[in-house]
Amino acid sequence: MPDPDFPPGFVSLVSAGPGDPELLTLKAARRLSQAEVVLFDDLASGPVLDHAGPQAELIAVGKRAGRPSARQEAVNALIVSHAQAGRRVVRLKSGDSGIFGRLEEELTALTQAGIPFEIVPGVTSASAAAAAMGIPLTRRLTARRVQFITGADVTGQLPGDINWAALADPSVTTVVFMGQRSFPLLAQGLIAHGLPGDTPAMFAEAVGHPGQRLLRSTVAELARLLHDQGPASQPGLILYGPLAFPPQTA
Amino acid sequence: MPDPDFPPGFVSLVSAGPGDPELLTLKAARRLSQAEVVLFDDLASGPVLDHAGPQAELIAVGKRAGRPSARQEAVNALIVSHAQAGRRVVRLKSGDSGIFGRLEEELTALTQAGIPFEIVPGVTSASAAAAAMGIPLTRRLTARRVQFITGADVTGQLPGDINWAALADPSVTTVVFMGQRSFPLLAQGLIAHGLPGDTPAMFAEAVGHPGQRLLRSTVAELARLLHDQGPASQPGLILYGPLAFPPQTA
Ligand SMILES: C[S@@+](CC[C@H](N)C(=O)[O-])C[C@H]1O[C@@H](n2cnc3c(N)ncnc32)[C@H](O)[C@@H]1O
Ligand SMILES: C[S@@+](CC[C@H](N)C(=O)[O-])C[C@H]1O[C@@H](n2cnc3c(N)ncnc32)[C@H](O)[C@@H]1O
Repeated sequence: MPDPDFPPGFVSLVSAGPGDPELLTLKAARRLSQAEVVLFDDLASGPVLDHAGPQAELIAVGKRAGRPSARQEAVNALIVSHAQAGRRVVRLKSGDSGIFGRLEEELTALTQAGIPFEIVPGVTSASAAAAAMGIPLTRRLTARRVQFITGADVTGQLPGDINWAALADPSVTTVVFMGQRSFPLLAQGLIAHGLPGDTPAMFAEAVGHPGQRLLRSTVAELARLLHDQGPASQPGLILYGPLAFPPQTA
Repeated sequence: MPDPDFPPGFVSLVSAGPGDPELLTLKAARRLSQAEVVLFDDLASGPVLDHAGPQAELIAVGKRAGRPSARQEAVNALIVSHAQAGRRVVRLKSGDSGIFGRLEEELTALTQAGIPFEIVPGVTSASAAAAAMGIPLTRRLTARRVQFITGADVTGQLPGDINWAALADPSVTTVVFMGQRSFPLLAQGLIAHGLPGDTPAMFAEAVGHPGQRLLRSTVAELARLLHDQGPASQPGLILYGPLAFPPQTA
């Protein structure tokens, strides 16, 4: 149906949430149902795409192939060209698109090409991981700050410019994105900067996907575990800090 | 309709998103449509409640009346008693319920009473504010950390235990919740700890509500402005850091 807010040549940058198709917003579902083209990431695929209508062309633009930067430029060009062809475009990104999603590059490309767009915010996987474990991200007296960091810079390594005073703070909930591989190194630095090794930690893999796995641990123990486990096969988050784990029932 | 995942006596802790009724998740909308009782906060009211079915009793449990701590205990007791009466209860909180939402107190009360529950994560107002302004919360090279803090502790004052090294970091996007009143004091501390006064800042009021107002500024300027403006009449967020403001068109 025609919608003045989503005219031909318009790009809607839609956040898909963590994976559970019910954690899409109503707006995201509506935009998918209206789209003529949906350009989606690896992590924003699966059952969420069932919301797209029969008219929609679905195009995977995952980062699996090629160098990341070349891929990003190709994605930018693809979004722009579909919009310039007068189609109603949904660009679908996992979680909340504004969090570690390379959104800025696409916004810049759209602005430079003079293409009108909107951003539809969504549920970040950090919120979904905490909810799945049954814990809040903040605590009134003990965790009055929550921070999201990345465990991998553009080269895939632990970023070199870490603010250790910020990250080794035991009174903060920290969520590490893309950090499975570098966590052993990160944990070593955290402990060297005074964070107790027995600080509660949680590993949340494939939240809202069929392979969901939640693990309670500590910073030191999880570092050992991820080191021994080797390359990750699923997306995962690490949370550490004064986590309010529910009472163990086992 | 009967739903094995939402039986009588079960509590669904539902995140309502920032206020725009379309930024509710599909799951939140479904839980509202199934609920027999909906206990909602001031900020989780308005059109989002239209998703509740005709059978639902809607009960406002806002913090406006009474001392916050007494109110919180009364809310806990109310949730527990409705669940114990065998009703299907939705506890509706604004944004993502795990972020500065006093979720822990309610989880503890439910656990102690042996009441089964789930947490439905949602879109935090921080994500919605950035999306409304057209900016990402993280930037690949310049903002590899994002942090959410509160500008008010239990007494309503700026918390006394601030990690200034973490907060005065110019390479981080910081989002201040409940911070309008204390921001002049916070900004003074940030600048004293080395954050440039001309660091980009944004004030986002009533995001997704009819009175939405977005303002671009700097840390020093916004501090002056909020000082002169006096008591806030709407919920608001302050964002500061290397914000990727879109090009000015005016
Ligand atoms: C490119 S980032 C995108 C993050 C996304 N914008 C968000 O807000 O969740 C991808 C990383 O997010 C995390 N992630 C995304 N979805 C996830 C899920 N369902 N379960 C666990 N981690 C997830 C993983 O750390 C993954 O490597
Ligand atoms: C008790 S906290 C709850 C935060 C909520 N859980 C979230 O994730 O957005 C309330 C504060 O959140 C912020 N807030 C909530 N909704 C907002 C909105 N629609 N616009 C701007 N700020 C909002 C304000 O700082 C407000 O004082």
